[in-house]
Amino acid sequence: MATMRAVSVQNGALTLRTDYPMPAPRGTEALLRVRLAGVCATDIELLRGYKGGFRGVLGHEFVGEVIAAPSDPSWEGRRVVGEINVGCGQCSLCRRGLGKHCRQRTSLGIIGRDGVFAEYTLLPVENLHVVPDHVPDEVAVFAEPLAAAYELLEQAAIGPGQRVMVLGDGRLGLLCAFVLAQTGCDLTVVGRNPEKLALLAATGAHTVLTSPTVLDALAADPADIVVDATGAREGFFTALRLVRPLGTLMLKSTFADRLQEFDLSHLVVDEITIIGSRCGPFAPALSALASGAIDPRPLIHAEYDLEHATDAIARASEKGVLKVLIRP
Amino acid sequence: MATMRAVSVQNGALTLRTDYPMPAPRGTEALLRVRLAGVCATDIELLRGYKGGFRGVLGHEFVGEVIAAPSDPSWEGRRVVGEINVGCGQCSLCRRGLGKHCRQRTSLGIIGRDGVFAEYTLLPVENLHVVPDHVPDEVAVFAEPLAAAYELLEQAAIGPGQRVMVLGDGRLGLLCAFVLAQTGCDLTVVGRNPEKLALLAATGAHTVLTSPTVLDALAADPADIVVDATGAREGFFTALRLVRPLGTLMLKSTFADRLQEFDLSHLVVDEITIIGSRCGPFAPALSALASGAIDPRPLIHAEYDLEHATDAIARASEKGVLKVLIRP
Repeated sequence: MATMRAVSVQNGALTLRTDYPMPAPRGTEALLRVRLAGVCATDIELLRGYKGGFRGVLGHEFVGEVIAAPSDPSWEGRRVVGEINVGCGQCSLCRRGLGKHCRQRTSLGIIGRDGVFAEYTLLPVENLHVVPDHVPDEVAVFAEPLAAAYELLEQAAIGPGQRVMVLGDGRLGLLCAFVLAQTGCDLTVVGRNPEKLALLAATGAHTVLTSPTVLDALAADPADIVVDATGAREGFFTALRLVRPLGTLMLKSTFADRLQEFDLSHLVVDEITIIGSRCGPFAPALSALASGAIDPRPLIHAEYDLEHATDAIARASEKGVLKVLIRP
Repeated sequence: MATMRAVSVQNGALTLRTDYPMPAPRGTEALLRVRLAGVCATDIELLRGYKGGFRGVLGHEFVGEVIAAPSDPSWEGRRVVGEINVGCGQCSLCRRGLGKHCRQRTSLGIIGRDGVFAEYTLLPVENLHVVPDHVPDEVAVFAEPLAAAYELLEQAAIGPGQRVMVLGDGRLGLLCAFVLAQTGCDLTVVGRNPEKLALLAATGAHTVLTSPTVLDALAADPADIVVDATGAREGFFTALRLVRPLGTLMLKSTFADRLQEFDLSHLVVDEITIIGSRCGPFAPALSALASGAIDPRPLIHAEYDLEHATDAIARASEKGVLKVLIRP
């Protein structure tokens, strides 16, 4: 049996396997060679037990090359990025066009489907998007997290005249800020790290270092829309303080903790809207990457080969570290 | 000093006072004689300690007559209903047109302003709406809670082709159902009381008695929009089960309890929108009452005079009792 190198999660621990079974495409699946992969906070949360953990090959941010596509050989040889959710195609949600939320879905490296910290992976051709030739792998690998940031614009009308705050200067917070800055809104990003906030200098966003005094001042003149990309429970409560009545709080963070004390009546009295926001549209993300409107490369802090994927994930978990890439 | 009869809350207990100071209008306030008042779940929650309780004259649903309006005598003699929130007019929220959410606001019988379980009350003339002559007091007294139900239509696009569920067949749940039924949406109301649900027979809404089996069946084919009007913590979690991914949960309930265990990541993964919804627009509510499109009178279960206001509130707290009126 053909084998490959892959980083597999077993009982919550990462293991480099050199004998992982080579995946074989079924149905409309294509076999992809992973050219470059990115480490996401969700990978780290999965290792910490989020969603009961995960077994199999981790990783869902990637750029790859189509090696075989039995259902449509015209894909072969193309360089692609891919949407990570695969619906069953049969249920009422899939029939309503909500396949990314199918209850029986698999999700690349997250739910029931081996991911991309491996030499090869599988995705249906319907999930693939061709990367324009002039876009380097180091840029294209950001398509998936940047698409998640673009989901904000699918879910709320954001534009000039609106005051928007982003909480968090991590990977996702910065990508959200890049996207929001394109809309012409009045944008403030609240972070903890001057070097990360400096990456936003060219966007026109205001940036502030968080402190009790700064948060009090911001809360005194609250925003129309607040995006919580802190990845922490406290971020939610801070965001609630910073959003005006009848305003909107958009949640980009998933984390394993639960809220222990939450007063729903606050949402009712202040008529707050809370919008959970997850995976998003690849088309505007690829377009912004291809045009250079958004250049995410300053976020790259390190690159590791697959043999050192454990080090890569440990590095990505460190404070202050932005995007860590893995090259199989 | 002139005095009046009023039902005042002191240390969480209701007291009928015959020597309550007669209110005197200031600024643009009008002096109103209360013709008829309604008991709301919020009154009951305030007595239970919601928002730290309340001191003063309780009650905010009313129809009254303008006795004096020093700032604009043309109001005098008119029969009116009134919006309950009074902003400071100066702060950034008031200047943004968000006066109903002003942080310094008073709110009739709820925050810092005596209410309507009394012979007389005060409201600025800007808050008043004239009641058409042919609308009886027993109908007009529903303007405020019906306006709160109409707030749903201000906050979400609801119409034909959408599947909407209302949880709760109490006062507010039924009014929400009346309003939603007007939109042509596919409406299901989940309640506990066959007699209350029967009041919706003419609306075309589907009605179902709640049970674990029924909720399982509804959850298997979740709705686009779910309105929680249960007034109970469990209602929120039930509503979350019944809303589809990328759907909207609208919260009409305020209650004193806090959520003890809440997994925010569920909102993110399923991309749920939660909208807190409170006071609403009087114009469409008065219009529906005046045209007879909505006749709320079947909800009236009892009427008491002011001397028996304590009995009225106790009655309104009983299971199965809908609207209780108080006639000063």
